[in-house]
Amino acid sequence: MPQFLNTSDADFETRFTALLGAKREDSPDVDHIVAEIIADVRARGDAAVIELTSKFDRLDLTPDTMRFSQAEIDAECAKVSDADRAALELAATRIRAYHARQMPSDDMWTDEVGATLGWRWTPVSAAGLYVPGGLASYPSSVLMNAIPAKVAGVGRLAIVVPTPDGITNPLVLMAAKIAGVDEIYRIGGAQAVAALAYGTDTIAPVDKITGPGNAFVAAAKRRVFGKVGIDMIAGPSEILVIADNDNDPDWIALDLLSQAEHDESAQSLLITDDAAFGQAVVAAVEKRLETLERRAIAIASWRDFGAVITVANMAEAVALSDRIAPEHLEICTADAENLSNQVTHAGAIFIGGWTPEAIGDYIGGPNHVLPTARSARFSSGLSVMDFIKRTTLSKMTPKALAAIGPAAERLAKSESLQAHGLSVRARLDRLNTGDT
Amino acid sequence: MPQFLNTSDADFETRFTALLGAKREDSPDVDHIVAEIIADVRARGDAAVIELTSKFDRLDLTPDTMRFSQAEIDAECAKVSDADRAALELAATRIRAYHARQMPSDDMWTDEVGATLGWRWTPVSAAGLYVPGGLASYPSSVLMNAIPAKVAGVGRLAIVVPTPDGITNPLVLMAAKIAGVDEIYRIGGAQAVAALAYGTDTIAPVDKITGPGNAFVAAAKRRVFGKVGIDMIAGPSEILVIADNDNDPDWIALDLLSQAEHDESAQSLLITDDAAFGQAVVAAVEKRLETLERRAIAIASWRDFGAVITVANMAEAVALSDRIAPEHLEICTADAENLSNQVTHAGAIFIGGWTPEAIGDYIGGPNHVLPTARSARFSSGLSVMDFIKRTTLSKMTPKALAAIGPAAERLAKSESLQAHGLSVRARLDRLNTGDT
Repeated sequence: MPQFLNTSDADFETRFTALLGAKREDSPDVDHIVAEIIADVRARGDAAVIELTSKFDRLDLTPDTMRFSQAEIDAECAKVSDADRAALELAATRIRAYHARQMPSDDMWTDEVGATLGWRWTPVSAAGLYVPGGLASYPSSVLMNAIPAKVAGVGRLAIVVPTPDGITNPLVLMAAKIAGVDEIYRIGGAQAVAALAYGTDTIAPVDKITGPGNAFVAAAKRRVFGKVGIDMIAGPSEILVIADNDNDPDWIALDLLSQAEHDESAQSLLITDDAAFGQAVVAAVEKRLETLERRAIAIASWRDFGAVITVANMAEAVALSDRIAPEHLEICTADAENLSNQVTHAGAIFIGGWTPEAIGDYIGGPNHVLPTARSARFSSGLSVMDFIKRTTLSKMTPKALAAIGPAAERLAKSESLQAHGLSVRARLDRLNTGDT
Repeated sequence: MPQFLNTSDADFETRFTALLGAKREDSPDVDHIVAEIIADVRARGDAAVIELTSKFDRLDLTPDTMRFSQAEIDAECAKVSDADRAALELAATRIRAYHARQMPSDDMWTDEVGATLGWRWTPVSAAGLYVPGGLASYPSSVLMNAIPAKVAGVGRLAIVVPTPDGITNPLVLMAAKIAGVDEIYRIGGAQAVAALAYGTDTIAPVDKITGPGNAFVAAAKRRVFGKVGIDMIAGPSEILVIADNDNDPDWIALDLLSQAEHDESAQSLLITDDAAFGQAVVAAVEKRLETLERRAIAIASWRDFGAVITVANMAEAVALSDRIAPEHLEICTADAENLSNQVTHAGAIFIGGWTPEAIGDYIGGPNHVLPTARSARFSSGLSVMDFIKRTTLSKMTPKALAAIGPAAERLAKSESLQAHGLSVRARLDRLNTGDT
C-alpha cells in the first residue's frame, strides 16, 4: 500500500515534507576503491583495465580484443530481428529530429559604440558513453545518449559496455550502429571511466563522459570531473501523475507501475482531486501487480515510496508538483495543456491521457535522460547542449575602445589590478596621439 | 624568464606536453574540514554560521545582523565615487545587453504523425552568489554573476560575502545594488555555502550557487552539488596571445601581465611566428615588471608558468591553441577575425590589437567567468543558461499513439519492462475497440 495524503489533513505539510525528503537510495561509499582503480588505470593503462575486467567481469581481454571489431558488431547485429531493428530505427529517427531542433545559433553583432560582440558554438571533439551491462543494459539509453552527441557534431564517440562472462546484448550494438557510434569497448566499471578520461594505449582519451551506471561508475565520474566533462549523476527514476476522475484508473495504474518496475528505489506519485479516483487507481495497481513480471521490484517501490495525494483543486496540484520538481510529470486532466503551462519545475511533461510516459522513454523524440531527485529545480535533461560549448567573441575598434575603455580602466584601478588598466591605457594613449 | 619553445625544435612535443600538463595549483585537501562545517550548519543552522564567522572572520553577528539592511547598503553605496558608480553602471548595461541576447526560445510543433513536441525554458527560482572577501573581492565579478541570473528571471538572488574584521567593500555592495540583488549576507567560507544550500532560520535555501572562492568554498560547492546546482569550479586564470610582429610589444606585454598579476598560479602564453618579436615582448614585460604594483605575483607567475612559443606559421598557432584550449585567447594578427573562426576550443576570443583582454574582464559585455585548465574543451563560460532549465513537452493524439506506440511497446519488451509496454498497449487496445 502506498501512502495516502490529503491537503486538507492537519498533518499534511509534515507528511508531504517527509515524502519530499525521503532518502530513496543508499549509495555505498565506494570512493576509496574507485580512487585506487583510477590511479591504477592512470599508472598502468591497458594492463590495469585488462586485469580489472578479468576480476570483475570474468572476461579475459587483450589490447586487441578490448574493442569490438566491425565483424563482431555486424555478427551481433545480425541476431536482431527485423521488427526490433525497425523499432530502434524509428526511435532513432524521431530522437534525431527532436534534438536537431535544439542546436542553438551563433550570433555576432556590432553595438552602438562600434564594438563587435558575439559567440560561436562548437562541438566537443571526443565523447565517451557509458552503457551498463547486465539487467540495466538498455538499447534505448544508447540512442538517447549517442544521438544528441552526433547531432551536436562530436567527431569521435566511444562506447564502453561491460560484457560480464562475455555476454553481449545485440540490441545495444545495433543501437550503437544506428546512432553512428565510432568505437565500442567491452569494458565497464570505474576502470572504463578512467580509461575514457585519461586514455590508455588502446583507448584515446575523450573530453566528455555521459551515461548511467552503478555506484562505482557514478563515483568514478565524479572523480574525473574537471579532467573531462560529465553529465548529471542520475538517481532512481520517478513519476508524478496529476489526474482527474475522467481517466481510466487502469491506464494511470500502468503509468505509475512503469516507474515502479524500474527499481525498488523508484517513486510513483499520484495527485488527484478525487479521493475515490485515487482509491480506484490503487485497486488497479494491486490488480496489475498480481501478474506483472517484475512485481517484486514494483511492489517494493510502490509500498515504500508510492503515494496518493488528494487535493482540493488542480491549482494545489501544480503548486505541489513544483515542490516535488518531478523527473517525469504526466498531466491527465481536462485542461492538461493549460495546466502544463503553469508548471515551473519538471524534467519532462506528458500532456493528456494519450501520452503515457513510456512513449518518452522510447520513441517520442525528447530525451529520456532527465533530472531526478528534485534537481529539475536547477537542471535539464540531456540534450545537444551537453555536447557543445560556447566561445564568446569581442572585437573593439579604436572608437569603441575610446568609448568604453576609460570605464574599464577605472574598474581595474578599483580592483587594484594595475596591468589590466595599463593594457587599456597604453592603447588609449596611442589614440590620443592620433597615431592609429 | 619564461620558457621558450619553438615548434621546429626536436624536443618541442615533449616540452609542449609538459607545459600543457603543468600542475599550477596545489589545492590543499580541506574536504574533511568542509564536511564537518557543512554538517554543523545543517544541524545547528544560524548558531553554527555565527560561531564560524566569529572564528574565521573575527566578526560577531546575530541572526538580525547577518544580513545587510537596506540602510547599511545605502550608507556603503554613498561612499562610492560618482565616477566609479558610472563605470559600474556602464558595465552593467553592457553585460545586461549581451546576456539578454542569450535567452533561448521555447518551441512547440506538431510532427508528421500528429505528435506535439517541444520544450519550455524556466528560470531557477532562487540563486546564491558567493563573493570572496578581502583581496579578491571584485565588484566586476558581482556584475558578471548576478546580471545573467537576473536576466534569466531568477526571482530571488542572495549574495554571501565575508567581511573579515567587519571590513566591507562599498563597490561590491554598489555592484550588487546595480545588478538587482535581493539579499546580501556578511558571511563566507564553507559555512556560507552550506547555509545557502540547506538554509537556516535566517537564510532561505537556494537552488543554485555560483561564484568563485578559495579551496574551502570550492570543496563546499562540490559537496553540496546535487542538493543544489553549482557553476564550474574555476582554477587559476590564463591567457594565450597569438601575435605577429605587426604589434607593439608593450601592448602584448601588458596583456600577458594582466593575467600574471592575478595570481602566482596564473599562466600567460605567447605564440608568435617571429622569434625576434617574442624576445621584444619578453623585454617589454621585464621593463613593465620593474614598476608594476603587483610585481611579486606577476614575476612568479611569468617565471614559473609563462612561455613564448615560436611557430612556423599561424596555422600551427591555431592547432596549438586548440590543444591548450585557453580560457582567454587574444588574436593580434593581420587576419585576426579569419583566424578566430578556425579556433575550436577557447572560453573567450579577443580579436585584434585594439581588444585587450581587460576589456572582457570589465566592460565588453560577454561574461568573464570562463572555463580554465583546458576545460574549454567541454564547457562554456557563465551565461543565462546557468540560471534556466528546460522542460521537454510531449502530447500524443490517439492517431499519433497508433503510429508510434507499437514500436515503443516492442522496445519495452526487448528491455523486459512489461508495465512500460502495457501502458501503451492498454491505450492501443482502446483504439482498436474504437472507443476513444
